[in-house]
Amino acid sequence: MNLGGIFPALTTPFEPDGFVSVAGIKENIRRYNQTGLAGYVVLGSTGEAVMLNREEGESVLAAAKEAAGPEKILIAGTGAESTAETIIRTKRAASLGYQAALVKTPYYYKPAYRAETYIQHYRAVADASPIPIVLYSVPIFTNVTLETPEILTLAEHPNIAGIKDSSGSIQRIGEIVFGAPDRFQVLTGGAAVVYPALVVGARGAILALASALPEKCVELYQLVQRGEQQRARELQLQLVKASKRIVSQNGIAGVKYAMDLRGYKGGVPSLPLLPLKEEQKQVIAAVISQHETAAARV
Amino acid sequence: MNLGGIFPALTTPFEPDGFVSVAGIKENIRRYNQTGLAGYVVLGSTGEAVMLNREEGESVLAAAKEAAGPEKILIAGTGAESTAETIIRTKRAASLGYQAALVKTPYYYKPAYRAETYIQHYRAVADASPIPIVLYSVPIFTNVTLETPEILTLAEHPNIAGIKDSSGSIQRIGEIVFGAPDRFQVLTGGAAVVYPALVVGARGAILALASALPEKCVELYQLVQRGEQQRARELQLQLVKASKRIVSQNGIAGVKYAMDLRGYKGGVPSLPLLPLKEEQKQVIAAVISQHETAAARV
Amino acid sequence: MNLGGIFPALTTPFEPDGFVSVAGIKENIRRYNQTGLAGYVVLGSTGEAVMLNREEGESVLAAAKEAAGPEKILIAGTGAESTAETIIRTKRAASLGYQAALVKTPYYYKPAYRAETYIQHYRAVADASPIPIVLYSVPIFTNVTLETPEILTLAEHPNIAGIKDSSGSIQRIGEIVFGAPDRFQVLTGGAAVVYPALVVGARGAILALASALPEKCVELYQLVQRGEQQRARELQLQLVKASKRIVSQNGIAGVKYAMDLRGYKGGVPSLPLLPLKEEQKQVIAAVISQHETAAARV
Amino acid sequence: MNLGGIFPALTTPFEPDGFVSVAGIKENIRRYNQTGLAGYVVLGSTGEAVMLNREEGESVLAAAKEAAGPEKILIAGTGAESTAETIIRTKRAASLGYQAALVKTPYYYKPAYRAETYIQHYRAVADASPIPIVLYSVPIFTNVTLETPEILTLAEHPNIAGIKDSSGSIQRIGEIVFGAPDRFQVLTGGAAVVYPALVVGARGAILALASALPEKCVELYQLVQRGEQQRARELQLQLVKASKRIVSQNGIAGVKYAMDLRGYKGGVPSLPLLPLKEEQKQVIAAVISQHETAAARV
Repeated sequence: MNLGGIFPALTTPFEPDGFVSVAGIKENIRRYNQTGLAGYVVLGSTGEAVMLNREEGESVLAAAKEAAGPEKILIAGTGAESTAETIIRTKRAASLGYQAALVKTPYYYKPAYRAETYIQHYRAVADASPIPIVLYSVPIFTNVTLETPEILTLAEHPNIAGIKDSSGSIQRIGEIVFGAPDRFQVLTGGAAVVYPALVVGARGAILALASALPEKCVELYQLVQRGEQQRARELQLQLVKASKRIVSQNGIAGVKYAMDLRGYKGGVPSLPLLPLKEEQKQVIAAVISQHETAAARV
Repeated sequence: MNLGGIFPALTTPFEPDGFVSVAGIKENIRRYNQTGLAGYVVLGSTGEAVMLNREEGESVLAAAKEAAGPEKILIAGTGAESTAETIIRTKRAASLGYQAALVKTPYYYKPAYRAETYIQHYRAVADASPIPIVLYSVPIFTNVTLETPEILTLAEHPNIAGIKDSSGSIQRIGEIVFGAPDRFQVLTGGAAVVYPALVVGARGAILALASALPEKCVELYQLVQRGEQQRARELQLQLVKASKRIVSQNGIAGVKYAMDLRGYKGGVPSLPLLPLKEEQKQVIAAVISQHETAAARV
Repeated sequence: MNLGGIFPALTTPFEPDGFVSVAGIKENIRRYNQTGLAGYVVLGSTGEAVMLNREEGESVLAAAKEAAGPEKILIAGTGAESTAETIIRTKRAASLGYQAALVKTPYYYKPAYRAETYIQHYRAVADASPIPIVLYSVPIFTNVTLETPEILTLAEHPNIAGIKDSSGSIQRIGEIVFGAPDRFQVLTGGAAVVYPALVVGARGAILALASALPEKCVELYQLVQRGEQQRARELQLQLVKASKRIVSQNGIAGVKYAMDLRGYKGGVPSLPLLPLKEEQKQVIAAVISQHETAAARV
Repeated sequence: MNLGGIFPALTTPFEPDGFVSVAGIKENIRRYNQTGLAGYVVLGSTGEAVMLNREEGESVLAAAKEAAGPEKILIAGTGAESTAETIIRTKRAASLGYQAALVKTPYYYKPAYRAETYIQHYRAVADASPIPIVLYSVPIFTNVTLETPEILTLAEHPNIAGIKDSSGSIQRIGEIVFGAPDRFQVLTGGAAVVYPALVVGARGAILALASALPEKCVELYQLVQRGEQQRARELQLQLVKASKRIVSQNGIAGVKYAMDLRGYKGGVPSLPLLPLKEEQKQVIAAVISQHETAAARV
């Protein structure tokens, strides 16, 4: 399985009554199908997976599967705190036609978790899973970081296909690329470091920003593939700014609002995530308008 | 509702096949009924609530309710990441006969959460809940800390009865006691600071350690009530050591093993929490043996 | 040597040209001599010791010694990054008539420092020093915390008389009081936790706040000594507020401005510490005015 | 002034009696003169500057100046906690013939320092300095990070030539390169990220590792200059490992021991920095031996 390219971390649209909007999911994905995105990550952190119960999650997975273009790789977020629940969700994603499962680290009992805990957890999930596992280290949300030694140990498992590293550390990506078997693929979760990540050997990226600005993210990937370093560097810096203002400062509410502005079904996130205030919306509107002007000029 | 006294944060025993042990829960509680514990906290952090789905959680709540002595106050842990799910769980706990709900802070999207987020979340839950709410700030697991200003704002809500503060900050307890209405009660979650917490005005404590050593924890509370400062100080320091070796160093697995040694139904925690190694068991056995020798001498 | 009571962490006043104001130091101390302060800490963190070279530091020490009342205990801050320099400064303080040296942890190379480093450092200084050493753990400035095990090891040294712990942890104070020989004395550096610290066994406190409000800090100490728990608790909470607004929010500039308002020689701190803005001054003025009104009423 | 290339952060050798070894400094530099190093950083963090008083520091500066090849750029570490002392040291470095001053952030009073503090501090130093200033952000030692906004503000000052950023953040380097005037040059302090740093626009690096392995560090720089990406990536990963084992795990003592093994005057650091234990030495010896074998093979 080739994980090269850009994957958006999809948001989950809701109906006004709070139910998952199956129609919204499909509509978004049908538009994304027209872009150069490599596939979709469904029920990641950006998908508000932790807000959904198992049944809601499955309805999201089913809707996304139905709408996705046949050439798009489908990755389901299936990580739960317990090993058993993670396995149940992973098997269900496989049965729904997903090609890989993105499994975030357990994290609640972090004072009791050791490298050994993560190794045993991921091995148990990978042993039980019908589809390949992608490790997921996202310290900004979990306060847990997978470090190079345990990643390299897990990279030996035949059913662990790679890692999404959202720590922003370029050094760690280099270490993994160097130390792991070639079939183990590194994806960065940091829109602000896609370019240096690719330079040191990452295969691609899973980005919340790509839900709002898929074309720009794909363009950056392609520039690096073609060796256009100067233009890649410039586009990266535009994405640093866009990512800061949309994702870092405003979180899921920001991504969803940017999607609204671009004609996708964004909407507001689930409580306790609060909707944006007017001044937050204006910052995002300025970013989107700048990107669209630039795009029109080309 | 008077929350004065010591509440154990109950563990959840499991059958060998991984299912919740309803019989084990009841057996433990019937023994605890003989002690001076003020009541029980069910499905707290120590209860592995984050490992259980909604149905499993409800079976735990029902079993504990059935076994609890009529004079014991029952508090259910009902906090979930989403406001809606928290309300559902809180209502269910009320319908099962629980007298209060312990609601931990949402935490996954902490970069997007502000004081305002917590205020709106807790108000929504308290407005919807048929039973009083107890705020729960547990930074060791959530990396989120409720600070004095938002606590004092929430303390004004008529259906918010108090807070369990597990940060270990004695200063914050003093600030809350001073700034909040008298009916708002502070419980500490730190076994190592029960004595100074009571001195600055906390009403009691919710302690994992009290699942293994309920008599000692109750004794400390009573010493402070009787003004026996010197003996309180000494017992506190014994509990500091016991808490470090059982709870801080070994987590839920440590608490459960200490319970096994004392004749309760402890067992092993759910994966990915790992069972204790032999040397960890020995440290705990030494602590328990010391306490039992001391108790026998009296 | 008895370290019981309240010590102000003295500020260092400067002349308009940036030189140390020897006259200002003496004037302040002569006023402090009229209060119930147990003694003086000169060249601590609040004294801007890290801004002064060795010669300037010695002029401060000499001036304070000259002005201090004969019954006041004199403690000199002598900690430097290097062991050798710390010894030089400690010997010099002894020769100037100081009775003890407050030695903060080395901290710059913290990634390379271990418990063993601190043990060897403090032993070398204590071995070489003609006067007793007081350990000083101040993580807010150094990002280094002395933990209970190394403190208890060092407490065995006959020339180490105690510790100033500015971490705010009441638990650690209890552990030290319980584990260390009786002659080893714990002083807290946290104005917000003086009362609970004394309750668990601290002998006193070294406080920046006591440079501006010495009477109030001494009063709190005396209330606890007399067992007036309710009044102690109330006064503690007033000091929590005062300490937050003067010290925590405004640092040395805040302490110095509060001193100015109370008729001491405060002035502005050395650059890069910036002078207060008008709105910061108003907050402090309100605190001081409240305290003086309360004092006048009594 | 062109800061492109690799600068070693020089260590300071000591005589057995603890005095600075002027002969050792000169001997080391004469050997470094034979390499492709761009110049020397004297009295940086690796040079134990915080252990030395002003006079000792000046003797180190003078010795290094005397031995340095005329084409080598000389940079003196001159940052002190106080603005005034920083200016004194900077002027002295200029008078000794240094071409630039590396000024680390003040950090002791970090709770009171704001972006504005750093801006005023650096402007005051740059205004007063006869030679250009290089900002120095080294959070591993100072727990202070210069962030992009204040860096870009300071980059406008005509006498501020660049920054050494030791945070390891590639994103920040990209932001600075993009946002600052061309004449403002970024050097990374992270041996583990030299390659990605250069890719996003850094001009060079100041590295402790280059005191022990100058040829390898220079080779990496040259590979990137020549566009040999694959070989650069491989060499970078060797340097990641070497840097971890020598610098990250063992600090200055590790760098000095690696220097000893390579025939430089390393020696032991000042107390409280402890000499290496035997097993630490063996790890370093293995790294050095591997590098020398590889070098001999070429």
